[in-house]
Amino acid sequence: MTLVSEHIEPDTRERILVVAERLFREIGYQKTTVADIAKVLRMSPANVYRFFDSKKAIHQAVARGLMGEVEEAAQAIAARPGPAAGRLRELLSTIHHMNSERYVGDAKLHEMVEIAMEENWDVCNAHIQLIGEIIGSVIGQGVASGEFEVADVPVAATCTCMAMMRFFHPQMIAQCVDKPSPTLDQMIDFILAGLAPRGKAK
Amino acid sequence: MTLVSEHIEPDTRERILVVAERLFREIGYQKTTVADIAKVLRMSPANVYRFFDSKKAIHQAVARGLMGEVEEAAQAIAARPGPAAGRLRELLSTIHHMNSERYVGDAKLHEMVEIAMEENWDVCNAHIQLIGEIIGSVIGQGVASGEFEVADVPVAATCTCMAMMRFFHPQMIAQCVDKPSPTLDQMIDFILAGLAPRGKAK
Repeated sequence: MTLVSEHIEPDTRERILVVAERLFREIGYQKTTVADIAKVLRMSPANVYRFFDSKKAIHQAVARGLMGEVEEAAQAIAARPGPAAGRLRELLSTIHHMNSERYVGDAKLHEMVEIAMEENWDVCNAHIQLIGEIIGSVIGQGVASGEFEVADVPVAATCTCMAMMRFFHPQMIAQCVDKPSPTLDQMIDFILAGLAPRGKAK
Repeated sequence: MTLVSEHIEPDTRERILVVAERLFREIGYQKTTVADIAKVLRMSPANVYRFFDSKKAIHQAVARGLMGEVEEAAQAIAARPGPAAGRLRELLSTIHHMNSERYVGDAKLHEMVEIAMEENWDVCNAHIQLIGEIIGSVIGQGVASGEFEVADVPVAATCTCMAMMRFFHPQMIAQCVDKPSPTLDQMIDFILAGLAPRGKAK
């Protein structure tokens, strides 16, 4: 223990998360124990607990890492110059594709997302909030450029988020595979139509 | 058995469904057995099986009954005269309130809905399809009256359905209680804006 110097600890925390994510994907969130994670890393469970208070803390950190990747990609698109409508389409499509890859399909990670959403983990709420704000920033850019016309940008942003639920929410992506559904682009067209300037009064 | 005349059988089938629905609400879908249902009705499980092939068949029939009530209310609104925009708002609100009452809150029925949706029961797919068609008929009426302008009515209908997912899907209604969300009327306003006639080109 005296050989463990300060600079190794961030790596250990990161290694624990890498292994945890891999085991969640391979054997599932519920079935993975802290002992399993520790075994792969050739450390004791007690050592894992030096870095994380609980299994739930590990899970929140894994979820945080995955969500952070999506937020980073979203912020990059929002920061680019150019017409807002095209960037909004790209933003909504990117969030959909990244969530599909990360959480659905072969990955058992949507089991973790289900629990996270059901138990109302703070990381989920904060992520949803931030994605809404990023969407709101692009909508705001569109209002400034005259491409969009909305009464209230934050409300339009949360409506856009909610309208995209079948394409954003990992459980809904998984569940709706065999259900009647518009395509991603049809849904985005519909949203863009709602944001477009009004002509004559309704 | 010779005393059981033809006209009693529909009542028995209906009584089984009434009891099944009550037990699903009280003790939960998973925990209710065919024996439980039979016991309340003072009949043998074998007798229940005369009317339903399996527990799943009973569940599909209970789900069918609940969904049928929503479809009936929706069709009544679609059949009324008057401006389409107001009736579309009423239609979307009604579906939300009925699904909230039936499946969420005290009722353990959303456990049944979860399984039904995950296992892709035909009754669910048919219901979603029909609700989409009813919404489509009101959108079509709005296009005819000039209140709405859409390129493709069925696509606009499925987009409207999907956009309302947080307010229609029992699991999402339950899960989103504590999540950032637009109000029901804000979401409907957003959808109506998407359906409204375009003025100048986008």
